[in-house]
Amino acid sequence: MRRIDTVGNALRYFATVVVVLVAGTLILGQLGISVAPILATAGVAGIAIAFGAQSLIKDYFTGFFLLVEDQIRQGDVVEIAGKAGEVEEVTLRYVRLRDGDGFVHFVPNGEIKVVVNRTRTHAYANIDVGVPENTDFDAVFKAMRDVGAALRADPKFGPLTLGEVEVFGVDRWELWGVMLRCRMKTLPHERDNVRRELNRRLALELQSRGLKTA
Amino acid sequence: MRRIDTVGNALRYFATVVVVLVAGTLILGQLGISVAPILATAGVAGIAIAFGAQSLIKDYFTGFFLLVEDQIRQGDVVEIAGKAGEVEEVTLRYVRLRDGDGFVHFVPNGEIKVVVNRTRTHAYANIDVGVPENTDFDAVFKAMRDVGAALRADPKFGPLTLGEVEVFGVDRWELWGVMLRCRMKTLPHERDNVRRELNRRLALELQSRGLKTA
Amino acid sequence: MRRIDTVGNALRYFATVVVVLVAGTLILGQLGISVAPILATAGVAGIAIAFGAQSLIKDYFTGFFLLVEDQIRQGDVVEIAGKAGEVEEVTLRYVRLRDGDGFVHFVPNGEIKVVVNRTRTHAYANIDVGVPENTDFDAVFKAMRDVGAALRADPKFGPLTLGEVEVFGVDRWELWGVMLRCRMKTLPHERDNVRRELNRRLALELQSRGLKTA
Amino acid sequence: MRRIDTVGNALRYFATVVVVLVAGTLILGQLGISVAPILATAGVAGIAIAFGAQSLIKDYFTGFFLLVEDQIRQGDVVEIAGKAGEVEEVTLRYVRLRDGDGFVHFVPNGEIKVVVNRTRTHAYANIDVGVPENTDFDAVFKAMRDVGAALRADPKFGPLTLGEVEVFGVDRWELWGVMLRCRMKTLPHERDNVRRELNRRLALELQSRGLKTA
Amino acid sequence: MRRIDTVGNALRYFATVVVVLVAGTLILGQLGISVAPILATAGVAGIAIAFGAQSLIKDYFTGFFLLVEDQIRQGDVVEIAGKAGEVEEVTLRYVRLRDGDGFVHFVPNGEIKVVVNRTRTHAYANIDVGVPENTDFDAVFKAMRDVGAALRADPKFGPLTLGEVEVFGVDRWELWGVMLRCRMKTLPHERDNVRRELNRRLALELQSRGLKTA
Amino acid sequence: MRRIDTVGNALRYFATVVVVLVAGTLILGQLGISVAPILATAGVAGIAIAFGAQSLIKDYFTGFFLLVEDQIRQGDVVEIAGKAGEVEEVTLRYVRLRDGDGFVHFVPNGEIKVVVNRTRTHAYANIDVGVPENTDFDAVFKAMRDVGAALRADPKFGPLTLGEVEVFGVDRWELWGVMLRCRMKTLPHERDNVRRELNRRLALELQSRGLKTA
Amino acid sequence: MRRIDTVGNALRYFATVVVVLVAGTLILGQLGISVAPILATAGVAGIAIAFGAQSLIKDYFTGFFLLVEDQIRQGDVVEIAGKAGEVEEVTLRYVRLRDGDGFVHFVPNGEIKVVVNRTRTHAYANIDVGVPENTDFDAVFKAMRDVGAALRADPKFGPLTLGEVEVFGVDRWELWGVMLRCRMKTLPHERDNVRRELNRRLALELQSRGLKTA
Repeated sequence: MRRIDTVGNALRYFATVVVVLVAGTLILGQLGISVAPILATAGVAGIAIAFGAQSLIKDYFTGFFLLVEDQIRQGDVVEIAGKAGEVEEVTLRYVRLRDGDGFVHFVPNGEIKVVVNRTRTHAYANIDVGVPENTDFDAVFKAMRDVGAALRADPKFGPLTLGEVEVFGVDRWELWGVMLRCRMKTLPHERDNVRRELNRRLALELQSRGLKTA
Repeated sequence: MRRIDTVGNALRYFATVVVVLVAGTLILGQLGISVAPILATAGVAGIAIAFGAQSLIKDYFTGFFLLVEDQIRQGDVVEIAGKAGEVEEVTLRYVRLRDGDGFVHFVPNGEIKVVVNRTRTHAYANIDVGVPENTDFDAVFKAMRDVGAALRADPKFGPLTLGEVEVFGVDRWELWGVMLRCRMKTLPHERDNVRRELNRRLALELQSRGLKTA
Repeated sequence: MRRIDTVGNALRYFATVVVVLVAGTLILGQLGISVAPILATAGVAGIAIAFGAQSLIKDYFTGFFLLVEDQIRQGDVVEIAGKAGEVEEVTLRYVRLRDGDGFVHFVPNGEIKVVVNRTRTHAYANIDVGVPENTDFDAVFKAMRDVGAALRADPKFGPLTLGEVEVFGVDRWELWGVMLRCRMKTLPHERDNVRRELNRRLALELQSRGLKTA
Repeated sequence: MRRIDTVGNALRYFATVVVVLVAGTLILGQLGISVAPILATAGVAGIAIAFGAQSLIKDYFTGFFLLVEDQIRQGDVVEIAGKAGEVEEVTLRYVRLRDGDGFVHFVPNGEIKVVVNRTRTHAYANIDVGVPENTDFDAVFKAMRDVGAALRADPKFGPLTLGEVEVFGVDRWELWGVMLRCRMKTLPHERDNVRRELNRRLALELQSRGLKTA
Repeated sequence: MRRIDTVGNALRYFATVVVVLVAGTLILGQLGISVAPILATAGVAGIAIAFGAQSLIKDYFTGFFLLVEDQIRQGDVVEIAGKAGEVEEVTLRYVRLRDGDGFVHFVPNGEIKVVVNRTRTHAYANIDVGVPENTDFDAVFKAMRDVGAALRADPKFGPLTLGEVEVFGVDRWELWGVMLRCRMKTLPHERDNVRRELNRRLALELQSRGLKTA
Repeated sequence: MRRIDTVGNALRYFATVVVVLVAGTLILGQLGISVAPILATAGVAGIAIAFGAQSLIKDYFTGFFLLVEDQIRQGDVVEIAGKAGEVEEVTLRYVRLRDGDGFVHFVPNGEIKVVVNRTRTHAYANIDVGVPENTDFDAVFKAMRDVGAALRADPKFGPLTLGEVEVFGVDRWELWGVMLRCRMKTLPHERDNVRRELNRRLALELQSRGLKTA
Repeated sequence: MRRIDTVGNALRYFATVVVVLVAGTLILGQLGISVAPILATAGVAGIAIAFGAQSLIKDYFTGFFLLVEDQIRQGDVVEIAGKAGEVEEVTLRYVRLRDGDGFVHFVPNGEIKVVVNRTRTHAYANIDVGVPENTDFDAVFKAMRDVGAALRADPKFGPLTLGEVEVFGVDRWELWGVMLRCRMKTLPHERDNVRRELNRRLALELQSRGLKTA
């Protein structure tokens, strides 16, 4: 598997560099060549470079953990560093996303603070419906459940769902009325498809039952 | 218990590394091999790495305190680093949340400044009801108390509550009227369920008593 | 008293560590064991750790001053690091708050910039009432004073107050009229209760005197 | 005077610490005890602590200049670090404010970037009056000047002012009309009282002259 | 190819500097001239400069990766450091863009966190159409598909597209109705042209079919 | 001149400190007293202090350049660190402003990023007049020029201006119409006076010519 | 040319300082005077100063690149560090701008992240016209082209333009209709003049053709 290979190669490469550096230093010392000036020169240059390069070192450290902890895989839909999209490539240095406009984002791993992975095992399609306060709430709740059941029975959309509609009730008061909420468990990559189909069917159903009029 | 094990293992591992490093240095010194070049090489590399890796070191330090101080447990609903959700996993390096959309958040511990734990011993369902200034406030307050009493008596929702409705009175003036507030003490994980049911019952009750019309 | 104990223990603990470290170094030196390699190893590791741990060191320093300067006590209502609530616990490393929703906040002391303590000796309930420009201002001011006097005479709310209503006059112009302001001095923990009762009584009084109609 | 004492004590204390440290180092050196290990130990610990404690060192430095430059005195009304209130206490480490709600703010001096002192020698009460574009501006300006003259003659408010009303004219265009501005020089602590009284008298005067109708 | 040359030259130049510095140090040492003072002088100056110059070092490091990883090419339309425009020049130190107003942006590479490349292989023209809830959604969806088919058949715009219109359905609820969405795959540089033509044709078509009236 | 004196004194003071420090070090070395421990002690303390005091050092550096480059003079109206007002005092460490409310601002020089000096040689009074799209633009432009000419001829306001009104035309479209713009060159400290008088005269003129009605 | 001179002088000055410092160190060493204490003193002071002065060092580094890369010239209109205006002076340490109010901005070069140069070879005047959805779009597009052609033929404004009006079509949907866009290529310093004249002519033309009524 590619993820293990990437990490393994990185560790092997790092170990080689360490062994060569230490061995070289010891051999030079045995040959009577003073390594102090070389080290001092390297030290001054190293610090100057480290100031500028710390964000690159951070890229590799973060990338190492992204891979080892399996936070991001190719094909996932993620939100990192304020950018959301489908993952096209994960390396030790950056993650490449493509968003809904087809734009390609190169995100250096060190810029990633929190990884939001939208496609892990399941997701929920949440529907908020605003209605006036004198609406028959229970009738709306019933419409939500009926629409959900019809969707579950649909040969195209049913297999995309993982459960019945859950009605959450009167979620909050707004100046113009109240907000009613329900949700449905879906396959992780099908959340938006289910959500939009629920929106469409619910809007039509509320219209036909006279529960919401624009 | 897993929390104690995680911390104990980390401390044991850290002690081993320290002892091995110090012992190795002393032994090399006894064998007449100069450790200065090795240390100098390690120093230059170490500083360069420390610049880039400080956020990882911070992850472990913060994670250590999260576990020792018992701030976050699996199953809690927390708000950390601007992300809210239910905790699926706590390790020394990160906390994994799942939010209401089913999205999974990997939060490195070093990004956590303040932990807001929403599920500790109890919570409060706050209800704000906006009414015009010429409303009969006391009638609304009575409706709030009646709805609360009915909820307490409900076989499904009563056990989720930990006290009667407390009426807070006229909380603030708005341009369009005043905001009335009450709250109810609930089981920590049932706050939203109680709040939504209170919303539903109160909206219906105010309608039926003619105290609020959309 | 617990506050003094916490600080005293911390100082004693710190002194012990310093004495042991210095004494150990001197003894090792007397025994002819070179401490330079150990110190160098510790130095490289120490700097790497200090980079990551500086926020923890800052927690303890800030906590020390919070306690010595008596800025926060258990039971106070405070606002720190953007979080407001009642203090449940103060330690050298963090402050634990519980807010109005019953949520628990763990605030590391190093995150605290400015402490706002809402419950020190007294507080003020400020009431802003917006009215059109052609209102009889003096009649509103008289209503404010009358409501304040009635509250002072109330057996339940009177003892919570520390002075008469002070009328501040026409505080500012708004697009829709002007804002009138008054305030009342209260016991520090009773500010919100007095404020809400003032709101309620003033709204009713202005209605009954025909000075404000929604 | 307390301010001078605070600074003098701090300087004397600092000089003592420096002399003792240097003398101790020299004496130990004369006694043939190597101070290098102690210094090295102190150095490693010192750097680790300095990382965490730099904000405390900054508190004292900034506090020293606040006092020496006489920027803040007890009783002043100031705005520091985004907090405004009356100064109750100034020390080398923090400034304690009490704001209009009676809340107490502990502001560490290092958090203070810019000091805004609202009570130095004098202040100005600015009044902005919005009117439609077809208003008789000069009549409003005359009303402003008349109200100012009446206030100057008032036995209660006259002594609080330091000059006549200055009319600034048509300050800016808004979507709904224009904004007219005038101001009055006042005693530094009486600015808000004069401003509110000006607001009240001007609103009544404009009403009675038919220049502004809500 | 220019990109490879730029990187190759930079690496060769860097290697030369390193070899010359190390060789010079060794030769001076062989000649019995102490290099310590020179190195110390260089060290003090180097650290002072490194503090100020770290953003320049970062420019070159980031630029090196921009080129090696092929993130930005001349002629691409990109969004970097909050600036969007067409790339006129890419160097190791900066990227030069020209935006839609003809303004030229010089972006130092170190300021680039995330590269958004809008012109890689393909892009999507997304169209959001807001309609009241009682609209015949399916009729709008049909209009979207018909307009897309007509565009595909157009000799001027057809070759700019890479696929049929995809109808996404009822994307979200708004206070004033619902938002319907569709999108079309296009050549990367022709996205805006296709999007604007789709907007124009869809507005006309919805008008002519009576589905949307302003 | 005071500015030159301030800078000269600072340089002389700095040179004295350097000479004394170097000479003292050399003399102590000649006397056979090892300065290494003193320097080491000073070094550890110096770094700890430098962490906390760097903002003070920055104050002096920035202040030095403010004075040498003549960016701010007493009496100028400037905008620094988000604060605007008239400069009452400039020193090497801070700038003291007084704003339009009479508030005094102490701005440490290190907080000053960009200096905006509003009173250098000349300023411009810009007037934006919003009108509906069906207005006779050229008539408004003529009114602007006539008002400007009258102002130039005014014995009180004429000497404050440095040129005729320049008409800029139709500056931008707004939802409710278009914005017309003109400007007038003025003496640097008289900009607001001229601007307000232009506002007043233009509002009256547009009214009397029937070009703008509220 | 002044730009080359400024850079050349800076480089020559820098080389002189380096040569003098190294030579002085070597000579002192030859004379048997130990330079170690001087270097150590300079080192401690140097680091303390470097902390505070790093923004000044950055000013010179950035200024060097601004000049060498020819990003800003006197007379250009630029946007740097959030400030826009015409460049009056460019030095190695700062850029001096004058904005549309006649205010003078001193921008230290180190504060400049991205340079936006608005006057390089050409610019575009973009015109956005909002119309209801039932407008005859093509008639508006024709009006845009006609107005552009008339402007090109105008003896005063024609020479300021560099091309015909390009019609971009229906740019986006708004709640109240759609936004139509066109643009015209202009001389870099004449963009605003052309834009305002286009605004004026287009507003009149749309009125006279009955295509837009306020």
